[in-house]
Amino acid sequence: MANLSQLMENEVFMAFASYTTIVLSKMMFMSTATAFYRLTRKVFANPEDCAGFGKGENAKKYLRTDDRVERVRRAHLNDLENIVPFLGIGLLYSLSGPDLSTAILHFRLFVGARIYHTIAYLTPLPQPNRAFAFFIGYGVTLSMASRLLKSKLYL
Amino acid sequence: MANLSQLMENEVFMAFASYTTIVLSKMMFMSTATAFYRLTRKVFANPEDCAGFGKGENAKKYLRTDDRVERVRRAHLNDLENIVPFLGIGLLYSLSGPDLSTAILHFRLFVGARIYHTIAYLTPLPQPNRAFAFFIGYGVTLSMASRLLKSKLYL
Amino acid sequence: MANLSQLMENEVFMAFASYTTIVLSKMMFMSTATAFYRLTRKVFANPEDCAGFGKGENAKKYLRTDDRVERVRRAHLNDLENIVPFLGIGLLYSLSGPDLSTAILHFRLFVGARIYHTIAYLTPLPQPNRAFAFFIGYGVTLSMASRLLKSKLYL
Repeated sequence: MANLSQLMENEVFMAFASYTTIVLSKMMFMSTATAFYRLTRKVFANPEDCAGFGKGENAKKYLRTDDRVERVRRAHLNDLENIVPFLGIGLLYSLSGPDLSTAILHFRLFVGARIYHTIAYLTPLPQPNRAFAFFIGYGVTLSMASRLLKSKLYL
Repeated sequence: MANLSQLMENEVFMAFASYTTIVLSKMMFMSTATAFYRLTRKVFANPEDCAGFGKGENAKKYLRTDDRVERVRRAHLNDLENIVPFLGIGLLYSLSGPDLSTAILHFRLFVGARIYHTIAYLTPLPQPNRAFAFFIGYGVTLSMASRLLKSKLYL
Repeated sequence: MANLSQLMENEVFMAFASYTTIVLSKMMFMSTATAFYRLTRKVFANPEDCAGFGKGENAKKYLRTDDRVERVRRAHLNDLENIVPFLGIGLLYSLSGPDLSTAILHFRLFVGARIYHTIAYLTPLPQPNRAFAFFIGYGVTLSMASRLLKSKLYL
């Protein structure tokens, strides 16, 4: 297991592990936020979910959509669409031997931008707050991708 | 290539590879399930998909939504939302040198919970079956994340 | 850091890194395409996004859905559903010591199929172009999964 302990002794990889764990935990929080709004606003997508609120036609009225719930779901999907590329490209970037301080700057900017994106989406803050947060995260991932493709291209 | 063979000789990593492959294959099955319901129920999202069922206005009537199809799509999206964090956090957790039996317990619980979640969603089973399955998987991922952040935090 | 440089000297892993970076960058392009259609067609999901186009009721008319935007969003979601399994299974497959030319064939077919899928979805090309592209990518991922489960199963 020598190589495994070496991997976790690598500072860039440890930093990637820490920031990834934080941003994925933040993404998981979106599920809880959706559940919270569904329960407090009684807005459900499945008949079995609102069976506890009444029988038959009485329960069916809770099968509806709600602006607040849809907003959280869009924020969640946007997280998925942006965190998946970060996960794949960031892992490969971390293994490609980048400079530690450059790598940490990338990770910090990405995680900060995604947390700010969530706040801007759920508050909601006026635009271009959310667009700005989105493009910071997007730019960080593209910057890591361009370094990977420049230094390690093997097709 | 010494380090690569070492990586795959590491038992925790091999277990992670096996369980991940199973749970991702299960997730891929959801695409097939969606296609199955779309074809058997003639419910399509794109005009080009139903061109074989008639011409012009006759084909357009198949551009509709269906409870069964939407249910499978929700189950698929829920898989994505939960399996992506497991993938990222589980990989880093596997590399952080956890106890083998503890790690395997985490992986088994997660994969079992996600399979049960799919069964509960598609049958559908009455609540709280699905909620229970969801929270087991969620808890497993959070448990791995908290171990990572406790032992390997590097910000 | 001996093991890290070894990892990136492994040819299969370098090829995986290159193809993954390309396919994830392609997926990120879908966000830009969605933004492009939303802005040029003035079709928005959030009230704060169309505040610049008018006040009050005048802005609300841009809160609508549009076939073109929904098509890009479906293509994006289909990417997520298929690239996430490729990411997880492909990484583990790359570490399992496959033959270099077989591995590269898998990666090339997958990336080619997903690019073709996007073209077929956005043009749109008549079916079965898109279905064909989907099943090539699906088959590649299943082929890697079956090799992993045959050679490295550890449950």
